[in-house]
Amino acid sequence: MTVLDALHWRYATKRMNGQPVPEEKLDVILEAARLAPSSFGLQPYSIMVVADPALREKIREVAVPQPQVTEGSHLLVFATWNAIHDGQVDDFIAHVADERGLPLASLDGYRDAIKAAIAKHPTQEARLQWAAKQAYIALGTALVAAATERVDATPMEGFDAQALDDVLGLEQKGLRSVVVMALGYRDTENDRMASLKKVRWPNEKYRLSP
Amino acid sequence: MTVLDALHWRYATKRMNGQPVPEEKLDVILEAARLAPSSFGLQPYSIMVVADPALREKIREVAVPQPQVTEGSHLLVFATWNAIHDGQVDDFIAHVADERGLPLASLDGYRDAIKAAIAKHPTQEARLQWAAKQAYIALGTALVAAATERVDATPMEGFDAQALDDVLGLEQKGLRSVVVMALGYRDTENDRMASLKKVRWPNEKYRLSP
Repeated sequence: MTVLDALHWRYATKRMNGQPVPEEKLDVILEAARLAPSSFGLQPYSIMVVADPALREKIREVAVPQPQVTEGSHLLVFATWNAIHDGQVDDFIAHVADERGLPLASLDGYRDAIKAAIAKHPTQEARLQWAAKQAYIALGTALVAAATERVDATPMEGFDAQALDDVLGLEQKGLRSVVVMALGYRDTENDRMASLKKVRWPNEKYRLSP
Repeated sequence: MTVLDALHWRYATKRMNGQPVPEEKLDVILEAARLAPSSFGLQPYSIMVVADPALREKIREVAVPQPQVTEGSHLLVFATWNAIHDGQVDDFIAHVADERGLPLASLDGYRDAIKAAIAKHPTQEARLQWAAKQAYIALGTALVAAATERVDATPMEGFDAQALDDVLGLEQKGLRSVVVMALGYRDTENDRMASLKKVRWPNEKYRLSP
C-alpha cells in the first residue's frame, strides 16, 4: 500500500472498538517515530507508551477526556525534555562518537553548532517550543506508519498537560508531555466521522508558486 | 518498500547532485503533505514550491545558505498563516460545509470548539507556534513520502526567515516561513554523511513505560 493510499484510509478516529493493536504493529509505529529526523539529530523527546487499561482510565478521567484513550489499546505520549541545556548536547555527541566509532574531538564542530543553534533560542520556553516541533515530526512519521499498518491513530492536543505529567511522573524523568496519540481500531458503527468525506484545503490554496 | 525501509534509506542529505525530481514524484510528496492531519483539520499553513534555479540561487544567497537549496531541484517552504483569527475559522467551516454538503448551522459546535481552542493561546506568538507544529506534522508526512519515492529530502531550520519571506513575498500572502525542505538526489561521492551510520537514541532512552 502506498503512503497516499494509507493517508486516504486514515481519519481522525473518534471512537475505537477496544480491539488491541498487536505488539509487532506497535513496534513498527514506534520504530518509525524513532527513525524520524530531528534538528541536528538531537531527538529532544521520548515517547511513553501507556497500555495498562486502569492507567488509561485514570488519564481519561483527569487529563485527556477523549474516549479513544480507553477505547484504543495504547496511548502514546510524546514528551520533550523539560529543559534544554548544553549537558544534553555533550551526552548526544558522546553517543554519536560511540555509535560511529569516531574520536570525540572530531565532533567538536558538530557539538558547537548544536549549542549555538540552541543558544539562538534565548528562553527555555522558546527551546521547549523548538523541541516540541521536533516531536511533531516524529508524530507525523508515526501517523503514516500506523496508517500503512492499518492501525487507527488519533493525535490529540488541548489536554491537561500538567495533570498528565503528574499521572505519569514525567517531570521526575526530565520530560513534559506535548502531544498524545491514541492507537486502536475504528468503531465504524458508532463513529460518525468514519463515513465523512476527508476535507483539506484545495491545492490552489495549499500549494503555492512564487 | 515499507515505511521502515524508507526511513532507514533516508538521511539528512548534505550534498545533492542536481538531478531533478520528476513532477509525478513531487506531486506524491506534496499530496502526502496535504493529506496530513492537523488540529481540527484547520491546516493553518501552505507550502510554497520553489523550482526556479535563479530564485533558489537568490534564496541560498540571502536566506538559506545550504548547498542543497541549489543542488536539489525543488525547495519546499512550509509557511504558516502569519496571524490566526476567527475569520479563518469561519472560512474553514464554510469550506467543510461545502465539501460535505452540510448546512452551515450544523457545524456551529465544531466552529465554536476551534475558536475556543485558538483562544486558549492568548498571544499571536503562541498561536503561530501552534500553527508551526501543525506544519511540522505535514513536514514529517512529506519526509516519509519522499523516502518511499526514493527522493532525498533535507529539512532545514535556522535560516533567515525574514529574508526568505521577503524574497518570496510571503507576508503579502498572509504567510510566514517556518521550515524548509530541499528535494533532490544525494551526491554520494561528495556527501560525507552518505556513508555514516544513522544514530538515534536507543529504545531504553526513547521508548518509555510508566
